[in-house]
Amino acid sequence: MAEWGDCDPAGFVFNSRFFEFFDSSAWLLFQAALGVRPSELSTTYDIVGIPLVGASARYVAAVKFGDVIEILSNVSEFRRSSFDVQHRMLVDGKLAVEGSETRVWAAADKDDPSRMKSRPIPAEVIERFKTA
Amino acid sequence: MAEWGDCDPAGFVFNSRFFEFFDSSAWLLFQAALGVRPSELSTTYDIVGIPLVGASARYVAAVKFGDVIEILSNVSEFRRSSFDVQHRMLVDGKLAVEGSETRVWAAADKDDPSRMKSRPIPAEVIERFKTA
Amino acid sequence: MAEWGDCDPAGFVFNSRFFEFFDSSAWLLFQAALGVRPSELSTTYDIVGIPLVGASARYVAAVKFGDVIEILSNVSEFRRSSFDVQHRMLVDGKLAVEGSETRVWAAADKDDPSRMKSRPIPAEVIERFKTA
Amino acid sequence: MAEWGDCDPAGFVFNSRFFEFFDSSAWLLFQAALGVRPSELSTTYDIVGIPLVGASARYVAAVKFGDVIEILSNVSEFRRSSFDVQHRMLVDGKLAVEGSETRVWAAADKDDPSRMKSRPIPAEVIERFKTA
Repeated sequence: MAEWGDCDPAGFVFNSRFFEFFDSSAWLLFQAALGVRPSELSTTYDIVGIPLVGASARYVAAVKFGDVIEILSNVSEFRRSSFDVQHRMLVDGKLAVEGSETRVWAAADKDDPSRMKSRPIPAEVIERFKTA
Repeated sequence: MAEWGDCDPAGFVFNSRFFEFFDSSAWLLFQAALGVRPSELSTTYDIVGIPLVGASARYVAAVKFGDVIEILSNVSEFRRSSFDVQHRMLVDGKLAVEGSETRVWAAADKDDPSRMKSRPIPAEVIERFKTA
Repeated sequence: MAEWGDCDPAGFVFNSRFFEFFDSSAWLLFQAALGVRPSELSTTYDIVGIPLVGASARYVAAVKFGDVIEILSNVSEFRRSSFDVQHRMLVDGKLAVEGSETRVWAAADKDDPSRMKSRPIPAEVIERFKTA
Repeated sequence: MAEWGDCDPAGFVFNSRFFEFFDSSAWLLFQAALGVRPSELSTTYDIVGIPLVGASARYVAAVKFGDVIEILSNVSEFRRSSFDVQHRMLVDGKLAVEGSETRVWAAADKDDPSRMKSRPIPAEVIERFKTA
């Protein structure tokens, strides 16, 4: 549900909140496909995470306080070490917001652990999304 | 400055925060160009606001807790009733995040005041940005 | 669930997020007791809302990314025009955070609609919470 | 300044945002007193951080979109391993919000590095606040 604290003085969900929703949905998508809890993703695959290198949203209809939101998410493309997640937010079954994220499969850089470096996405991970 | 509460468990500024920074910078840009305080923009021009219809970000370099952020913003294009705002976030003078917003000059719909309707952007507003 | 974007660089849910959770839970509590959706509370009772005049939290145990959170909320006291909401957040059945909010039943001030003024809480509202 | 994205549908800064402001101000207070940048506090003193065990706010006057905010913060009491930070938020020189945080000087637990354990606050740290 679109919460009071999500909404701006015009009464609509503030832009940045949608990117929080997308992020949460991306984690849940990985949990659903891989059977790995979000908090265990990094240790399971020896990565730092799946950081964003790009994100965008298109606002089709304003989302108001109290609106019940449904998010449909899927990975639209896997590349060697990055992938795209598409999000469709529906209110009352109608498209309200379309989002897109580009994420990287990233591990700590061995030469400098404070930095991240992209890594090839394991074939087994990609496979799981096909059959999900 | 990138605050503690802006950052995620990886230690980097969380994606959604950049869209908050872009929004704040867009309001300041209008204040600088028009000489109108953000809270007086709607009454001054008889609009509801300048809502987003699209937003995107490209993350070039991770922004860490404590990083001092500089944002350069400008309107790259005015159309009849919408416009694009470009944002460049620098850390130590280097590009960290590029953002783009598409906004609408929106007033309350006369037939249904709970809805917004785009309106032609006044020529004087566009003019002010040229000379700013 | 404690989301990635809720957590700080230490890996724990950032303090301010709990106050968002409390707020959402307060609205749901009113919905459960009164049978009125959050977005219809103001029109149903001719109020502006139930703004906070005070809030506090006590952090008993750190809440981590991915923790499943349960919130138990109740109104501990109704006064003439204000009331207290108590929140208990549990993770794995154990108390993690205790919260308290003091809220006011507030309508627009007739002399100055831009301001809010407390109003007596209707007896029927208080009654509903007793039987809820 | 109270930003658009800080404000709720009633037009006032949403409750949780004040706790973000308090947190930022606490880090700045330590920087001012100790001459250590927030991002270097943990390495300088071999701690994980200064996590909150309690926080509260009292809302005296509503803070609106565009209001210019001033925050005055100080440590009101140092105890063995915890301390209290008081915050006073002013708008136009008048008190709008009073806040209080209780924080712990915390290091990683040697027996279980994923947990934090309070540590005695170094005398030199307390001394610096006296002369600040």
